[in-house]
Amino acid sequence: MVFLDRTRLAERMRRALAALQVTPISIDHVVNSLVMTSLRGVDSHGVNLFPHYCRAVGSGRINPQPQMRFEDTAASTAILDADHAFGHHAGALAMDHAVEMARTTGMASVAVRNSTHFGAAAYFSQRAAERDCIGFAFCNADALVKAHNSRESFFGTNPICFAAPMADEGPFSLDMATSLAAWNKVGNAQRTRKPIPPDWAFDDQGRTVTDATLARSLAPVGGYKGFDLGMMVDILCALLAGGPASKDIPGMYRASLSTRRNITHFFMAIDIAKFTEPAVFKANLQSMANRIRALPPSDEADDIVMVAGDPEKRTYQVRLYEGIPMDDEKFAEFLEISGDFHEALASA
Amino acid sequence: MVFLDRTRLAERMRRALAALQVTPISIDHVVNSLVMTSLRGVDSHGVNLFPHYCRAVGSGRINPQPQMRFEDTAASTAILDADHAFGHHAGALAMDHAVEMARTTGMASVAVRNSTHFGAAAYFSQRAAERDCIGFAFCNADALVKAHNSRESFFGTNPICFAAPMADEGPFSLDMATSLAAWNKVGNAQRTRKPIPPDWAFDDQGRTVTDATLARSLAPVGGYKGFDLGMMVDILCALLAGGPASKDIPGMYRASLSTRRNITHFFMAIDIAKFTEPAVFKANLQSMANRIRALPPSDEADDIVMVAGDPEKRTYQVRLYEGIPMDDEKFAEFLEISGDFHEALASA
Repeated sequence: MVFLDRTRLAERMRRALAALQVTPISIDHVVNSLVMTSLRGVDSHGVNLFPHYCRAVGSGRINPQPQMRFEDTAASTAILDADHAFGHHAGALAMDHAVEMARTTGMASVAVRNSTHFGAAAYFSQRAAERDCIGFAFCNADALVKAHNSRESFFGTNPICFAAPMADEGPFSLDMATSLAAWNKVGNAQRTRKPIPPDWAFDDQGRTVTDATLARSLAPVGGYKGFDLGMMVDILCALLAGGPASKDIPGMYRASLSTRRNITHFFMAIDIAKFTEPAVFKANLQSMANRIRALPPSDEADDIVMVAGDPEKRTYQVRLYEGIPMDDEKFAEFLEISGDFHEALASA
Repeated sequence: MVFLDRTRLAERMRRALAALQVTPISIDHVVNSLVMTSLRGVDSHGVNLFPHYCRAVGSGRINPQPQMRFEDTAASTAILDADHAFGHHAGALAMDHAVEMARTTGMASVAVRNSTHFGAAAYFSQRAAERDCIGFAFCNADALVKAHNSRESFFGTNPICFAAPMADEGPFSLDMATSLAAWNKVGNAQRTRKPIPPDWAFDDQGRTVTDATLARSLAPVGGYKGFDLGMMVDILCALLAGGPASKDIPGMYRASLSTRRNITHFFMAIDIAKFTEPAVFKANLQSMANRIRALPPSDEADDIVMVAGDPEKRTYQVRLYEGIPMDDEKFAEFLEISGDFHEALASA
């Protein structure tokens, strides 16, 4: 395990992306999103993805110099053709446009087609929250979550993300896969040969498994309700934006890195000022969160009482000082990109 | 158990509400919502609620002759002060207004304050879907779902509802409480003295229970994720519309029936035509649902493979012929309102 200095790591990632001819604005969004996400402790969607992204640019899946085009279809709706840009860049443009429209009309949505993996959805919803809006972000993915009563997976882990501003701290931020557990937790158990809880995953016959090496699909969160939430996400993404869903999306790792995935996203922004004074809203949300945090713990509690985003805020404070942890195998991938990444070590 | 003829039952409910001086438009929405919901098999939110509603009108909680007022705050946003109307009526007006605005601007939302219990959320989202929109409906409720790691409940069962039109059948309709199980299932187990599954509910110390009589709070769907979704609902409802949340909302049954609850709702509509041809969208959603239904079953399957709303569509077809079932105790409550309800028996 190594610990990386966020500033030096960001600088080296910028250089590596520039060497791949990625445009400066794409670089900004990718690096900002990855570093923020790793600082928040969401290692599945942070800097660990960087070597994969570099390979995907090099092989042609991600377009380093996209020609993105907005089509405004009404005062509160637009479609963005992302031209296979980094999803981090396309998503930020789309959310910013939704916020801009919402400032006039009160609320707005932007669907994004022909995009790529966008990292952590919280990156986009929080942009809205920082501008006194409520932000929603949705994204589809290739088939991984098992359909209820079937042996086969259908929807991806299709995240639902929601953020809203608070008075005394960063935004309330809910960013959840519609699977119970993340696939990378199953992958970790495969590597370490540890058993997984019986409610996480299924084998190729749709039977529950504790042996992670047999896992082929994930359980939806909350049973059939989670599967249906995943379908809601793909109705907003694939069907409104116009793109593939489920098995029609090439796998992020299984497909050739030259294969374009045509990922779709959907963003919504609500201007809080059209409903109430933003300062009052933020104070009320702060008070609601504080009341929840002050509830008496149960005898079965495994941690303090928290609201969405609290674990990430806690990890953020720790990692600002300790640096971003990374396992040696992953760091070796960074060194394959460039020996310069040695300079990003926090102890250096 | 008795079976009721939907047409005759609706007619008697209309008469009983008219006798309570309820306005004709409120009567339409209440009766249409309750009958549709019972036909769909959602007995917790259908005609079983009717005697309670009649008592709530008689005691002053529900206003039979509300003066509702819309405030349009921007081209895509509005607030409706429901003046303690039946939530069914207020919600339908709010969703219809959101659809109307979305027809121009592409998407819109309406927050509703000073409202009452609105029955099944699907009643509203489906109205949007019938007009080629995607509809969202949210509502808050009094504290019942336990906060993760606490012994106490905080949010209500705060439903999330989403509907979208399909080519060859009624809308795709997801209408889910953010608790794992409905409270009325716990109540049924209390009456029949049967044990409940250990993941449904908690006692007053926040410990899991199988004895339903000890249950004081419900488990959120999917653990902390469901609790956070419930918080999202109350951010949209209580905080945007301006109303109480959690323990500040008087209990539906626990509080005096003269106590007004100031329930809040939030509705959103997206005009599909602003993103794609509605006929194409509906065909694609039909095809997606049909593909899911055709997936191979697992060995552990307890039913066929379905999408959200399928169980309700199946029950609807059965109940159109068999009538609406009701237990004798509940039917006795109807007879207390009026002996005329005898004429609603399907066998009569």
